[in-house]
Amino acid sequence: MNKTLEIKRLAVIGCGLIGGSLALALRHAGVVGEIVGGGRSESSLQHARMLGIIDRYETDLARAVAGADVVMLSVPLAAMRPVMEGIQPGLAADALVTDGGSAKASVIADARAVFGERIGCFVPGHPIAGTERSGPEAAFRELYRERRVILTPLAENREQDVQRIARMWQAAGAEVECMDASHHDHVLAATSHLPHMLAFGLVDCLAGLEETREIFRYAAGGFADFTRIASSDPVMWRDISLKNRDELLAMFDRFEDEMRLLREAIGANDGEALLQIFSRAKAARDRFTRQMD
Amino acid sequence: MNKTLEIKRLAVIGCGLIGGSLALALRHAGVVGEIVGGGRSESSLQHARMLGIIDRYETDLARAVAGADVVMLSVPLAAMRPVMEGIQPGLAADALVTDGGSAKASVIADARAVFGERIGCFVPGHPIAGTERSGPEAAFRELYRERRVILTPLAENREQDVQRIARMWQAAGAEVECMDASHHDHVLAATSHLPHMLAFGLVDCLAGLEETREIFRYAAGGFADFTRIASSDPVMWRDISLKNRDELLAMFDRFEDEMRLLREAIGANDGEALLQIFSRAKAARDRFTRQMD
Repeated sequence: MNKTLEIKRLAVIGCGLIGGSLALALRHAGVVGEIVGGGRSESSLQHARMLGIIDRYETDLARAVAGADVVMLSVPLAAMRPVMEGIQPGLAADALVTDGGSAKASVIADARAVFGERIGCFVPGHPIAGTERSGPEAAFRELYRERRVILTPLAENREQDVQRIARMWQAAGAEVECMDASHHDHVLAATSHLPHMLAFGLVDCLAGLEETREIFRYAAGGFADFTRIASSDPVMWRDISLKNRDELLAMFDRFEDEMRLLREAIGANDGEALLQIFSRAKAARDRFTRQMD
Repeated sequence: MNKTLEIKRLAVIGCGLIGGSLALALRHAGVVGEIVGGGRSESSLQHARMLGIIDRYETDLARAVAGADVVMLSVPLAAMRPVMEGIQPGLAADALVTDGGSAKASVIADARAVFGERIGCFVPGHPIAGTERSGPEAAFRELYRERRVILTPLAENREQDVQRIARMWQAAGAEVECMDASHHDHVLAATSHLPHMLAFGLVDCLAGLEETREIFRYAAGGFADFTRIASSDPVMWRDISLKNRDELLAMFDRFEDEMRLLREAIGANDGEALLQIFSRAKAARDRFTRQMD
């Protein structure tokens, strides 16, 4: 299927939705020899092995990556640095390391601190894919099909190594693009991190009302769609909101300005202003729908 | 299918998603003789007739309701009062009027002003169903299947008339419940009106960023779900946000408090507080998922 890519041994640190789905996709594509899982939770690793995501596992991270030619880090952002410290003693000389973290500047800073002169072995990446579910049981091999993966290569990366990681994602069905880490963090704050904050915030706000059960009872399909992402993993989102803090807070500011406009228009009974805002939003959302098709 | 309900002539004023879907469902259920459409836009009425939603139409509202035993008003909230004024001269003595407006106190005030002593003929209602699409072409007969319809009966309504409107919705596949209009407006501000404001606000906010096209390019499925409702009809939402203004502004306040908590936790690097908020939200959203099943 992808004859130019051959991974003899893939180590996946964190075998949840992101890492587990990559493992399943690469195995299905026939481009990987052995898949070794690594992580803190033995029960989760056992589960991943039972589901056929990995061939074997090691809870010692250095042992998990021993002899691997590609290492995928798919753990919450705050775990990236300790995981990098854990794998470093076991990394083969020619091993490439990549990740699936949702904010890139923080992961790159961690990698520079841990890998030092070996930083060239680390090719940062972020698959723009996921669901609100998490854990090995949420993994499925089609997760990356026709989805985008953003790589944010470093000056120290060799072109051939970036290409190798790109081909890995292509073998999993994804389209790969490259951009600056800082641009990535800006764009993702807008399209993913802020929306998650709004969804978590709305649901928590409604959960604080007296008649929550009843309120949810009268929620329709629009509400279900709007709040689905509030079922996402709290630890993952705690880390993202802290690790992409500056970009996220800047988006909070912009959104607050927008909501002030809306609130003022409602308070002033200004139907014309509301119609303008809603029409602009609808036009943009309709364009987005067409863009996705 | 529903032997106790027989509508000889149903008049539907506004043959878009809400009115059109009701017409299609009742015709399919075999409980209605003739369906007459009414409204301002002749091209829209022609379209509704072509789609088999209505048998014939009248652009004069009094003529549209002449001889109808049930009249459904499914127009934007700001159009309710002029529409009521338009139909009144044509209403049969035994006609029942109901509506599909998303805020009930304002429609009831309109109805009291227009119908005066005849107010007992008006049974206010709101189907908790819809999609982000609008117009006759968006109508489909399954829209109300297993969805809730809230009736907010008036002291002046006869019990048998409330039952008749309830049976009409049941024939369309819906579950019918009754509550106070003011309670309805509070609950809907929380589950529908505020979420729509957030979705419109977010998309308009992102549409104002320089790199909008590119930003949307990297948006994933979660963003698509979250913002779907921003494709809703701007006129309808202008009216809802003004007609349920007090409840909506109260929800804006609550939501703003919540976002301040979130922002402060992010600014203070308080992972524990974030984890609490996100975990509470996830637990509530997961409960909602189970409630829906």
